[in-house]
Formats: sequence, C-alpha cells, structure tokens
Amino acid sequence: MKEHLNYTMLCDFYELTMGNGYFETGLADQICYFDVFFRNVPDEGGFAIAAGLEQVIDYVENLAFDDEDIQYLRGKNCFSEAFLTYLKDFRFTGDIWAVPEGTPIFPREPILTVRAPAIQAQFIETFLLLTLNHQSLIATKTNRIVRAAQGRPVSEFGSRRAQGPDAALLGARASYIAGCSGTACTLADELYGSPAGGTMAHSWVQMFPDELTAFRTYCQLYPHNATLLVDTYNVLGSGVPNAIKAFKEVLLPQGITSCGIRLDSGDLAYLSRKARKMLDDAGLTGCRIFASNALDEYIIRDLFLQGAQIDAFGVGERLITSRSEPVFGGVYKLAAVEDKDGNIIPKIKISENPAKITTPHFKKVYRLFDNEGGKAFADLVTLHDETVDASKPLELFDPDATWKRKTFTNFTAQELLVPIFQGGRLVYPRPSIQEIRAYCARQIELQWDEVKRFENPHNYYVDLSQKLWDIKQELLEEQG
Amino acid sequence: MKEHLNYTMLCDFYELTMGNGYFETGLADQICYFDVFFRNVPDEGGFAIAAGLEQVIDYVENLAFDDEDIQYLRGKNCFSEAFLTYLKDFRFTGDIWAVPEGTPIFPREPILTVRAPAIQAQFIETFLLLTLNHQSLIATKTNRIVRAAQGRPVSEFGSRRAQGPDAALLGARASYIAGCSGTACTLADELYGSPAGGTMAHSWVQMFPDELTAFRTYCQLYPHNATLLVDTYNVLGSGVPNAIKAFKEVLLPQGITSCGIRLDSGDLAYLSRKARKMLDDAGLTGCRIFASNALDEYIIRDLFLQGAQIDAFGVGERLITSRSEPVFGGVYKLAAVEDKDGNIIPKIKISENPAKITTPHFKKVYRLFDNEGGKAFADLVTLHDETVDASKPLELFDPDATWKRKTFTNFTAQELLVPIFQGGRLVYPRPSIQEIRAYCARQIELQWDEVKRFENPHNYYVDLSQKLWDIKQELLEEQG
Repeated sequence: MKEHLNYTMLCDFYELTMGNGYFETGLADQICYFDVFFRNVPDEGGFAIAAGLEQVIDYVENLAFDDEDIQYLRGKNCFSEAFLTYLKDFRFTGDIWAVPEGTPIFPREPILTVRAPAIQAQFIETFLLLTLNHQSLIATKTNRIVRAAQGRPVSEFGSRRAQGPDAALLGARASYIAGCSGTACTLADELYGSPAGGTMAHSWVQMFPDELTAFRTYCQLYPHNATLLVDTYNVLGSGVPNAIKAFKEVLLPQGITSCGIRLDSGDLAYLSRKARKMLDDAGLTGCRIFASNALDEYIIRDLFLQGAQIDAFGVGERLITSRSEPVFGGVYKLAAVEDKDGNIIPKIKISENPAKITTPHFKKVYRLFDNEGGKAFADLVTLHDETVDASKPLELFDPDATWKRKTFTNFTAQELLVPIFQGGRLVYPRPSIQEIRAYCARQIELQWDEVKRFENPHNYYVDLSQKLWDIKQELLEEQG
Repeated sequence: MKEHLNYTMLCDFYELTMGNGYFETGLADQICYFDVFFRNVPDEGGFAIAAGLEQVIDYVENLAFDDEDIQYLRGKNCFSEAFLTYLKDFRFTGDIWAVPEGTPIFPREPILTVRAPAIQAQFIETFLLLTLNHQSLIATKTNRIVRAAQGRPVSEFGSRRAQGPDAALLGARASYIAGCSGTACTLADELYGSPAGGTMAHSWVQMFPDELTAFRTYCQLYPHNATLLVDTYNVLGSGVPNAIKAFKEVLLPQGITSCGIRLDSGDLAYLSRKARKMLDDAGLTGCRIFASNALDEYIIRDLFLQGAQIDAFGVGERLITSRSEPVFGGVYKLAAVEDKDGNIIPKIKISENPAKITTPHFKKVYRLFDNEGGKAFADLVTLHDETVDASKPLELFDPDATWKRKTFTNFTAQELLVPIFQGGRLVYPRPSIQEIRAYCARQIELQWDEVKRFENPHNYYVDLSQKLWDIKQELLEEQG
C-alpha cells in the first residue's frame, strides 16, 4: 500500500523554463535564498500552525527525473539537450531551515528558508508551497475546532468530501498533529498513525428488518465498541429507546457499561439534552453521546452555549477542506543572492500594496517568551548573523509605526528555524507524529488566550531587528 | 513517475466494521443497490458537471488488500480471522452504472448506481464519493470560470494552493475536462494530458541586474513563447516599456510578432487597457495580454464589464480549491436490496428535513431534449424497467407540487446512466480526456442559457415517473 508517486514532476512548468534559462545563461549555480511565508491567518485567527515538513523532506530526498520524464520534456521542444542531460543527475544540494511541524506561526515571518543554486531553489517552489499550504491550512483549522470542543475528543471524518485522496490522507495527518484524537480514514492510520475508528452508517440500520435488530446485532459483534447511530428513523421516538434496549439486553448482562450513541442530524443541542436524560433515566450514565453533521468551531462553541450534552465530535467537510477558508496563502519569495565571493546581496519585491512587500536578506526568527508565566509575547526577525542576548534589555518596535517602541527584560529567546538539510544532506532527526502532536499542544499552551480568540484576536507582534529594518528601508528607497 | 498508491485502504473504518458485521451475520452476499447523488449545486449554480469516473474505474479494478493491510487490520483486534481471510481474496464482483464524465448533472438524480454484495457495495463508498465529489467540484467551478472568459483561454494555475498533490493533479485533470485550455502543472500534463505551460516568475526578473536584461534574455531563449511578467517593479512605469523594448530588439528582427505580457497584480481592468494602448502604439498589436491574480468567474465577468483588454487568464487558488464553495456534497445511499428470489425491495432513508429523504429503488435517468432547438428541458428518473416512449406525449409533474403538470411532445429521451462494470468486469470503453472534454463542451451547449446564469439560474426539472413517485409515497407512509 505504500508505493508513492514520485512528485519530482509536480512543478509549475515555468520552473523548468526558468531553470533552462538559468542553465543557458550561466546562472545555474548562482546561490539564492528563498523564504516561505504567509500574509494572512485563515478565518482571521490569531495564528496558524505549521505542518507538512515531513512530506517536504520526503520530496527533497526523492527528487529525480526518470527517463520517461526526460522524454516528456524533450517533447515540449523548448529545453536544450544540455539542460535535459543536467536534469538526469538532478538532486538537491542546498540548505533548508524550517520551523518544526506543530509550531504556531505568524504572518510575514519566514517559516522555511532555502539556500541553493538557482535552478534547484526555483524548482522546488511548487511542491514546498503546496505541501506546507495544505497541511498548515488543515492543522490551523483543526486546532480551532479542537479548542472549541474544550477537551472533548474530535475525530476527523471528512475523507468523502476531501479534495482528492491525498487531501484525505495528509489532511488526516495534519489534523492529528493539531489535536484531533483520530480519523475515520483507515489508510491515514496505516500510513501516518492517526488512530482510525468508526462504527456504522445508516445503511447498517437499513439492512436489518428493524432498528432494534440492527442495534442488538452490532452490540453482540462489538460489545466493547458499540456506538449506535440513532437517527436513521426518529432519534427520540425510536433511535434512543432502541439503543437503550440493545445496551440493556446485550451489554449490561456482560457487565459492560461503556457504550455510545451518535447523533448525525437534527438539532444537536436539543437532541443531545433529551437523549442524555433518557440514557441517564435508564441508568446508562456511562453511555457517551457522539455528534456529527456539518460541524465546525463556531457551531461547536454555540452548542455548548446552549447546554448541549455532547461528549465527542466527528467533524467532516468543514475540517478536511477548511471550508470557511480553503486557501492558505503561503508564498515563496527571493530574499537574497550570493555574489562570487559569497557576499549576500539582499533582494526585495516591491508592490503597490505595502503588505505585499517582502523582507529581504538571509534571516533568523526568534520567539520571545516572558519568563514570568512563560507565554510567548513576540517574534523577532533578524539578520542571519545577529544574536538576541536575553541577558540585556531588548527594545522592539513596530516595523510600520516605528515610534511604537517597548523594552523587554526577563525573557527567553528561542530560534524558530532549525536546520533540515545541509549541503543536500538531511540533518534533522525526524520526530514521530506523536512527538509532533505533543509538541504542538505544548506550543499552543505557550500562546496567550487573547491570541486564541476565534474572532478579533490580539495581534501578535512580529518585529524586525533594527539592522534588518534599516536594510529593508534602504532597498525600498533605492527601488521604490 | 507513474507508480500509484493503492487506495484499497482509503476507506472509512466503519466500512470494515460493518463489513465484518455483514460477514458474521450472513449478510455478506445480500445484494444491495446504492446511489450516488448530490443535493445542492455549488455556488447556487444551475448545474454541476460529473467528473472522476476514470479514477473510480482504476480504483475498482485495483481493489486488493496486501499482507501488510491484513496485518494492520488484525492489530485492530476487532475483525474475525474468517473475515480477514475473506479480505485476502476481496475484489469487486458487482455492477456499476454511471453518467459519463463531462455530463451536466442536477440535484437528487443518481449519477452512479452500484449493485453488489453488501460488503463490497458498502466498502467502496468512501473512495467513490471522494473522487466524484472532488473532481465534480473542480469541473463545475472551472466551467463557470471558463464561461465567464467568453471564449478566451483559461489556464489552471493553482498547484501551489491545492489541497495536497492529488488535488493539484486531479484538479488539473477535472479543470481540463470542463474547459480549461491547459495547466501550469507539469505532472498533470504528463499523467493526464492537460497541456502544461508557463514562462516566468518574479524571481526571474529579480535574478538579473535589471528588468530589461531579464526580458531581453528571456526573449532570446524563448522567442516563440515570450510572455513577460511585467509587474515586478512598476507595470506601466517600467514593466510594459521594458517588454516593448525587448520585443522590438529581439523578436521583431526575427519577424516574430506573436508574444505576450502577464499582469499579476494591481487593477487588471485599468492596467490592461493602458498596457493595450502602449503595446498598440508601439505597433505590437500581436502581443497578447495575459492576466492572473486571485481571479474567479465573478471578477472575470466584471473585468469585461469595465472594458478590460485581456486575452487569456491564469486562474489559481479560487479554481483549484473552488474557494467560494470547496465542498461538493455527493452522498451514497442505500436504495434497495434483493431478496433470495432476486426481487428488488426498495429502501428509503427518512429525515425530518424533506430535502434529505432519499428516492428508493433501482432506477434509470432519462434526459429529455426538445426536438426543436435541441436543448435539454428536463430529466426524468424512472424505475429500472420503465422505458420512455418518445413517440407518445409524456406528462411530467413536480414531485413536490404534484398539481404542476405539463405534457411534452416532439422530444428525444436519452438514458444518462451507462454500464461501467458488469459482474465485476469493466464494460465501458474509457474515453480519452480529449473526448471527455469535447463531450462536455457539447453537453453544455445543450443546456439553456437560463440554466447557465451564475446567480439565480432557472431551476431545471428533475422529475420522477408516476410509478417511482407512487413507490416513494408508499414507503414514506409506511415508515413516516
């Protein structure tokens, strides 16, 4: 089941026309720096969550054109034979730094930096963006939904509405990183270790002469995992009463008190309260109520505001497509090149829209944590060779409104970008998905609640060091 | 590049728990009928476009659990050894009917019907829905965008914002079926034949000492495919003038008058009009203006209303994710079972929401075309053994407001569901993607313009035959 398509050819065609151009004009080995960053948090939230690095690593390690690919490219009649020969031995020889998966990330800071010869650095753009954009999108959305559930388990249920097989599989992976307790997707468990579970569809109930027989049969087959879908005919009129009968007949005599019902339609606040009462009155206090049906963070929040009695959630299409904002707008921009002596020449992309102007140069990102309380209070983007000395007071300023200045003491600075590839060699000890998930949960804990609000969250500071700000201004004045 | 992951395990886990349940309770070979249908057209459009059947066929033909899969399932401790042994030889032995890819489809009519033993029919649910939902979503959205462009080419540019690699690849496929002229994604061309193209990113321009050198170099390299990106610094101040210089210097002396510029930011209506004038004044009337940047059908329509001078479009994230509605809600519902004598017993799923009540029984769908003008005027869902006799007047009635009746003559009836698998054997001559694309274009032509409006389109009729309506009413009264 684990044969993967090789994704080398999953590139924008212009990466090849430009690559051929760099090759033909002697720019092939020009060392470039590219940053991945994003400009807006989906759903106007306070932060996003980085995900997808594992698949970036797989991609970079497996970069290779096969004969079929070369033949296809030759047929396009726009590449030189010398370039096609060069592609036969193509591999990545550069450096990559990235924030670990599960890290909360903020607009306009680099979350991945590539230093590589021009053709290579340009070539990997599409796959890197695709992967980081997709998984960060799903991780970000999931974490909102999981936070709305206030500690109750949330399962990812969206495969059937996912945008293609990978969206189901990698979406399940990203959602597990960001806090889902599991998935309905079997292959996502087998490939990535997000625990798969699930019990029955309406068709199970319809296959039997009546609902009670369907429930009884299921309890006999799976006495330790009996979650009965109670809305095929009438939730309160037949579903819950029949579930209670089946539990009492089949489970209780075996001493099993842990069981569940699932509500998949109707008003979940009303039905869950009524069902809870019926279950409790029948002595089934150990029966959990599971809810699904077009849920998201807003509906889950409102359900609890209305006294819903729900113990666990299955969330489908609105999670797996991030329906309210299905695009994560990570971009890949040239930040610098090196001259022949290895000097770094910063590059900037101007735009009439100031928010779209890039931050030039080879950079680092520090996350600053308050030593009292331990929460993160700002990120500071610096030049690659600057160091934040936490033993001294640190003055930060708003990069747009530079008169807004504040000095911080008693803080800890942590570098966010860690080395992934050096000279084409993987130097990053890949964490397990369980480690990533635990790391993500810890990092979310280190964010202020004010940043976690669904609407109108506190605007977390992402500032530039004075040196970096000066270089950016200089370039703006030169080119603007 | 063509090794594919086997998607057998891409199922909801409950399909396996139910499968084991059917196996253990003697229902494994119970013949069932399931329909795929959808309830709402995305973006409140008049119709959707079916896509994804090709990948459904691949999936069904390759269904197989390998030893690793069986071992994984054994580890879940909920399946009987007899069931696991059964899975080792699992394959699809049933029948499938479906509408051909590229067909306009409407809510509440079957677009695919499965007749198979219970375990098999249940098992394939997730992958079928996932594939048909995803590709139909992208095909439907693309067709709206292509219609807005009024005959001008639209290229799919969205890989970097797609929801995973498959979303990029299969999304490019679906968009080509529905009318895109090509894609930026190289692998989508190699795998599916949607022509890939593309020229340069901003980084190309930034890699050279100045914009003119970057443009001149590109024109020298690709004189027959020079589309220059003119918004790296200042569109009208430097981009267009430098492009004109490069074209005049490099292309015109070679007698090449066909070239292009691309606008990727700013106000595309204003900039394209100004750029057109500058190009024309320079004698470059053969230079085409290509536009990209967060486009969709609404923006493209409005650009033309404001006199934009754009010859071709690149559409990215809003197409490849169908951003305005990223979910296509196809469902898979039990419609009937067979008793031991082969009699078909219709099944219905009741819901408090009348729109969610299913239409029972094994069915056919006829599309009815007016012989004058040739346009489609209604679809009629009938029992599997009914025939529409176009030589006689046909009375149709609204299935909800049954007093609304109308009699039609001089029409042609065409069956929409065609056999794909019979007894597990593929009986469908797979059309090429070019054939599907041409078929789709013809079928769209056969729809009234009133159905094609973006907002508030005419509500196309999907009616039930009298016999089918009677059976549905009977079941509703029995179970309601």
